[in-house]
Amino acid sequence: MSNSDLIRDLVVIVGEPNVVHKPEDLIVFEYDGSVDRAIPTVVVLPRTTEEVSGVVKAAGAHGVPVIARGAGTGLSGGAIAEHGGIVVALTRMTSILEIDEVNRLAVLEPGVVNIDLTAAASKYGLYYAPDPSSQKACTIGGNVAENSGGPHCLAYGVTTNHVLGMEVVLADGSVHWYGGKTREAPGYDLRGIMIGSEGTLGIVTKVVVRLLKAPEAVKTLLAMFKTVEDASSAVSGIIGAGIVPAAIEMMDAMCIRAAEASMNAGYPEEAGAVLLVEVDGLREEVEEEAEEIANVCRTYEPMEILTATSSEERERLWAARKGVIGALGWLAPNYYLVDGTVPRTKLMEVLREVEKVAEESELPIANLLHAGDGNLHPLILFDERKPGDTDRALEAGGKILEICLDAGGVLSGEHGIGLEKQEYMPLMFSQEDMDAMAQLKPAFGSEEIFNPGKIFPTGASHGARHPEGGFAKTAANAFV
Amino acid sequence: MSNSDLIRDLVVIVGEPNVVHKPEDLIVFEYDGSVDRAIPTVVVLPRTTEEVSGVVKAAGAHGVPVIARGAGTGLSGGAIAEHGGIVVALTRMTSILEIDEVNRLAVLEPGVVNIDLTAAASKYGLYYAPDPSSQKACTIGGNVAENSGGPHCLAYGVTTNHVLGMEVVLADGSVHWYGGKTREAPGYDLRGIMIGSEGTLGIVTKVVVRLLKAPEAVKTLLAMFKTVEDASSAVSGIIGAGIVPAAIEMMDAMCIRAAEASMNAGYPEEAGAVLLVEVDGLREEVEEEAEEIANVCRTYEPMEILTATSSEERERLWAARKGVIGALGWLAPNYYLVDGTVPRTKLMEVLREVEKVAEESELPIANLLHAGDGNLHPLILFDERKPGDTDRALEAGGKILEICLDAGGVLSGEHGIGLEKQEYMPLMFSQEDMDAMAQLKPAFGSEEIFNPGKIFPTGASHGARHPEGGFAKTAANAFV
Repeated sequence: MSNSDLIRDLVVIVGEPNVVHKPEDLIVFEYDGSVDRAIPTVVVLPRTTEEVSGVVKAAGAHGVPVIARGAGTGLSGGAIAEHGGIVVALTRMTSILEIDEVNRLAVLEPGVVNIDLTAAASKYGLYYAPDPSSQKACTIGGNVAENSGGPHCLAYGVTTNHVLGMEVVLADGSVHWYGGKTREAPGYDLRGIMIGSEGTLGIVTKVVVRLLKAPEAVKTLLAMFKTVEDASSAVSGIIGAGIVPAAIEMMDAMCIRAAEASMNAGYPEEAGAVLLVEVDGLREEVEEEAEEIANVCRTYEPMEILTATSSEERERLWAARKGVIGALGWLAPNYYLVDGTVPRTKLMEVLREVEKVAEESELPIANLLHAGDGNLHPLILFDERKPGDTDRALEAGGKILEICLDAGGVLSGEHGIGLEKQEYMPLMFSQEDMDAMAQLKPAFGSEEIFNPGKIFPTGASHGARHPEGGFAKTAANAFV
Repeated sequence: MSNSDLIRDLVVIVGEPNVVHKPEDLIVFEYDGSVDRAIPTVVVLPRTTEEVSGVVKAAGAHGVPVIARGAGTGLSGGAIAEHGGIVVALTRMTSILEIDEVNRLAVLEPGVVNIDLTAAASKYGLYYAPDPSSQKACTIGGNVAENSGGPHCLAYGVTTNHVLGMEVVLADGSVHWYGGKTREAPGYDLRGIMIGSEGTLGIVTKVVVRLLKAPEAVKTLLAMFKTVEDASSAVSGIIGAGIVPAAIEMMDAMCIRAAEASMNAGYPEEAGAVLLVEVDGLREEVEEEAEEIANVCRTYEPMEILTATSSEERERLWAARKGVIGALGWLAPNYYLVDGTVPRTKLMEVLREVEKVAEESELPIANLLHAGDGNLHPLILFDERKPGDTDRALEAGGKILEICLDAGGVLSGEHGIGLEKQEYMPLMFSQEDMDAMAQLKPAFGSEEIFNPGKIFPTGASHGARHPEGGFAKTAANAFV
């Protein structure tokens, strides 16, 4: 059957206005937040579970892959239709179906934007905890696919800790519920397997999430230090004092320079590291902890400590952090984001090794850290127009991931494997373990229909797979 | 090959003193905390991962099943060698290998008793949160197998929220690590599948758990009410006030009567329900919340409210709750424990239905609830010596589970499916969903070697499977 047969079938299922197939329209769906690009055969925008099911059945009949897509903010190429096929964009399934104030949960469609859920829940004094930096754009469905984290996951955990259940469309178009409205369910944890499976097992069409009581008070501290060592010591001191802040974020000198250049963030030029710490809870607790954190910071000769409690002031302190990746565009046209997590106590050691990699590769590396969690995001800056730069950036990224693994860490804190990190999987997993994972696919009836070529290594190096300039990513529209 | 060949091979692997095979010695391993009984072919007590691996390989060579066993406190028959085979008792693997104070985690062997971990961690001001009522006896390995809960899981979540990684021996004897020392890991969540898989996929030989900072203060309130309705209203009132206590436990009049008979708990004879509420955190917070909880309780005409802050006083308030299942032995020789979880707001409605079931079946039913979580444990009291009693108890249990499911709840809050609840699985799961679960077994190379006949329905009714008196459980040694 030809593409036009496929398109005709899809139009019958979702209606003409919800099928995108003209080349000029498909370009919008060519990329996500990663460095990868590929044009899908067709994009559909279903509005109901039944439509999703119908589209998946049609894909099966036509033998083409299905790639689920949320807002396209993913940083590892998970939404890229590398092998063509149908991109199922869930951005028209945006209903919040239920907010249950007493049982503190919400039932919603996958296209709901992360921050819109919190906005809706705030009427009841509740909020949804996982807050990726892309939360103003990214969708809950995408968060489920990537098991997304965020600055506040330090205290509250990642997506899997907040999703109670979900409705899923499997490869044969059948509709299933995994988990439900309670925290405990018997049998194997099918809910848990779906979360973080990056669209390779099924398409989530409804999600039940836990909501938390909004804290009585929130306080944000921004401390500027002369060196990364001082800032790291302060992090250890805070944790060592028995405080678990809602967030501890760190930016190094290069991030600071970028933030200054693009946003006039007001950081001292000579600052070596900035620490952003947030505490929440009862008013007394928050005041007590904030004072203790400031005291710990003072031990390490901070250049300045700012605090904020009102939401406007807090937003100002966060602005440079949330905008820093975009700001790096002022320093170099391209970046390669590395995503690794190491035991918190190894952070300083790993950062020193990252510095050595920067020297060896002769490429600047900016470091952005969810420091409390041990999750680091070295950003390797390069210029794809300079011969050899792309290869050196890739090589440096690989070295950094090896350093993380040697320090007892893992690949990918929160942005998935997707297309970008799959060749590094063997650094962390044995062939047997990857086989065990791969064998979960048939359990869900999904061999290669859903998001083929993702997560598992293909044997091709990244450069080899994208010879025509896969690393053309500019820094402007990314979130971390 | 004969049993004596098998035993000889096992002796080579673990040594003579660690192999139990005489009929009189095997009787000890005939039962666990459930109503089920079966004699294993042989029991081994390995001391290392290598020995576990060797035993599993030997089992494969001899074609006999392997049943992992912790302390044998499980309440759904998970450790029963229904089809004979090798019981691998992990009670000699009791080392706490590492407590990492700064990163707040511990690495330990599966035979470590739950409360011993907290005792060891307490030197660093840390503790392990999930606290099954059997915590003085049950092991971490068993907790992982059952994804155990406990009274304090209301605020802190169940086992899967506290296990970061594990070492596992699979069916071919190979040794693997799933997860590690960090909260986030890429790929499918194999760690998550293992947790709650009831020994059907592999044997856990090391566990990495999160430890939490011990709270500055803890306060326990015990409130006695005239009726279950009043106590339930108080629970709703507490949650509605925005407080999430560490625990909210409820016992009904029959539990109170049993506790009085066996322990002179000091409860008023005419009390209809007792509520046990615990709050923890900073001192000011705890005092404030305890006062607010007491105020909510006062709205519902409590007969008495007791509070305690010292650990001895608190332990006294908890004693009747922790001993109540054993105390039910004063009222009837047998019980059948039902384990269901419903949305919290449905508790009262479900309890009323349970009362109707008690009337219809002409069997007394005592109710014990992790009320804050919506997890209820109706205990159907009966006397297996009376003709028809066992059948009526079973039938009543099935009815109650259907009531829970109708109310949007799930089977089994925390005690697994095992042998006891498997015939109820189809009430909750479609054949396709059970097939999807069953197909996870081959992904781990485990068809029928590990714990065969558990979790998945066999088509046999419970009574039919244990015609010789499977329900001979006395109440003396059980925990909930």
